[in-house]
Amino acid sequence: MPPPTPITAGKFKSFRLLLNKKHRLESGTCLIEGRRFVAEALDRPGTIDCLLCTPRFAGTPEGAEFLRDAGRRNAAVHTITEKQLGQLSDTVSSQGVLAVIRLPGVGPQDILRLRGERLLLVALDGVTDPGNLGAIIRTCAWFGADAVLISERSVELSNPKLLRSTMGAVFHVPVAAGISLPEMIPDLRKKGFRILAAEAGGEPAGAVLPCGGNVLLVFGSEARGLSPIVRDLADVKFGIAGSGRIESLNVSVAVGIALFMATSGTRNAR
Amino acid sequence: MPPPTPITAGKFKSFRLLLNKKHRLESGTCLIEGRRFVAEALDRPGTIDCLLCTPRFAGTPEGAEFLRDAGRRNAAVHTITEKQLGQLSDTVSSQGVLAVIRLPGVGPQDILRLRGERLLLVALDGVTDPGNLGAIIRTCAWFGADAVLISERSVELSNPKLLRSTMGAVFHVPVAAGISLPEMIPDLRKKGFRILAAEAGGEPAGAVLPCGGNVLLVFGSEARGLSPIVRDLADVKFGIAGSGRIESLNVSVAVGIALFMATSGTRNAR
Repeated sequence: MPPPTPITAGKFKSFRLLLNKKHRLESGTCLIEGRRFVAEALDRPGTIDCLLCTPRFAGTPEGAEFLRDAGRRNAAVHTITEKQLGQLSDTVSSQGVLAVIRLPGVGPQDILRLRGERLLLVALDGVTDPGNLGAIIRTCAWFGADAVLISERSVELSNPKLLRSTMGAVFHVPVAAGISLPEMIPDLRKKGFRILAAEAGGEPAGAVLPCGGNVLLVFGSEARGLSPIVRDLADVKFGIAGSGRIESLNVSVAVGIALFMATSGTRNAR
Repeated sequence: MPPPTPITAGKFKSFRLLLNKKHRLESGTCLIEGRRFVAEALDRPGTIDCLLCTPRFAGTPEGAEFLRDAGRRNAAVHTITEKQLGQLSDTVSSQGVLAVIRLPGVGPQDILRLRGERLLLVALDGVTDPGNLGAIIRTCAWFGADAVLISERSVELSNPKLLRSTMGAVFHVPVAAGISLPEMIPDLRKKGFRILAAEAGGEPAGAVLPCGGNVLLVFGSEARGLSPIVRDLADVKFGIAGSGRIESLNVSVAVGIALFMATSGTRNAR
């Protein structure tokens, strides 16, 4: 394996543009960071476009071993300076390794092709906080959901903070972004899915979940809740009762509770 | 009510220092932001040291009404420029209103003085992400927990991102920071509390919760889990079963699930 070469100014500039949503969407690539996350990407052929690391990272025993492994998989590796790292990463204490990757492409047809008798899908209707959406994807992977659907008005999947918050879970559950829920929900219902939407004041979660068969759980935005058209498409509205001291529950916590209930005793829990 | 006066350079400088943890701890004050959060502080006598707003905020009908209300409560108000706002706030689209406040002081003795037959306390053992800790406090307020205990090695309570993530819930549940859990847990046990600690591979949460009597739920750090000494003090270890696809669940999601289970059907749910 040839030693990694310093990145050219032109290539660095093109990668730095990936901090900008427009350029991520145009190129179809995005940046991920950290040894474990990058290792997950390396495990998936065709995912990594290019690996970037600092001499500091390459100089540690773990870093050297990591790069040898990347070389065996024919990944292109460039070194970047600490200053360049600071320009690509907003992590306070970065490990010094990043990758330019292509996220797995999952579309509406992939979702409609899923086969099973107890499928569990999660749809987010306008969730705009990248940390929340990342935590939700991580939670969906934890509970073994079959896919996550992200509506058009949500934060985009290649957002660096979102990807960081998934802790790599974006590789462990299919995530379809830019989904029109008003089109998708009727298609899922035709395939036998029940549509359960979270809403304050809905039926108690414990009375509704778990339920048999194929299920789509829908959660609305942090600020505005469900959009009216999606709300009207739900078969059941369910809520998570609270003490009444404050107005709302964090959406990623609500997803966690609903998935815990939906999967309790019914799926391949370890 | 006199019209708000522009802030002096000296006062602005002293408030800007509150972005620094050392100065927050020395002064006992910290910054909060947003109309609803500041309104919660105004409702609590002795909390607000000084209110800061931009002319843009003061010029809106809601802002003018808000300032009239603040005046009736004798709060000192200063105006700041948009540039000064940007130096105090890391919110992308700030409403233009902040306050310098003193957080409610809650100590170990306040916790030990709590009286009741179904008390529910939550302890965080080394949680270091301010967004996670803020979401946890919000979740504890939602489920009506009686207090939150934050261990010494955790992020400090006056952290701006933590306070923002509480969405004001820090005023709706007593939060004791800087607690020595190895000292506190034996004291709570003497008062009849059962100590239940979250740990991967522990007994299924659904088999342990809800349980009667006074309960302390303990959660460890994102990276390292429970500290060994705290782990050894637990009566029961409980876990939240997952699909096995990924290694861990977000700690604020884990707290949400445990509190949902601990309070289901047993407390003043609305």
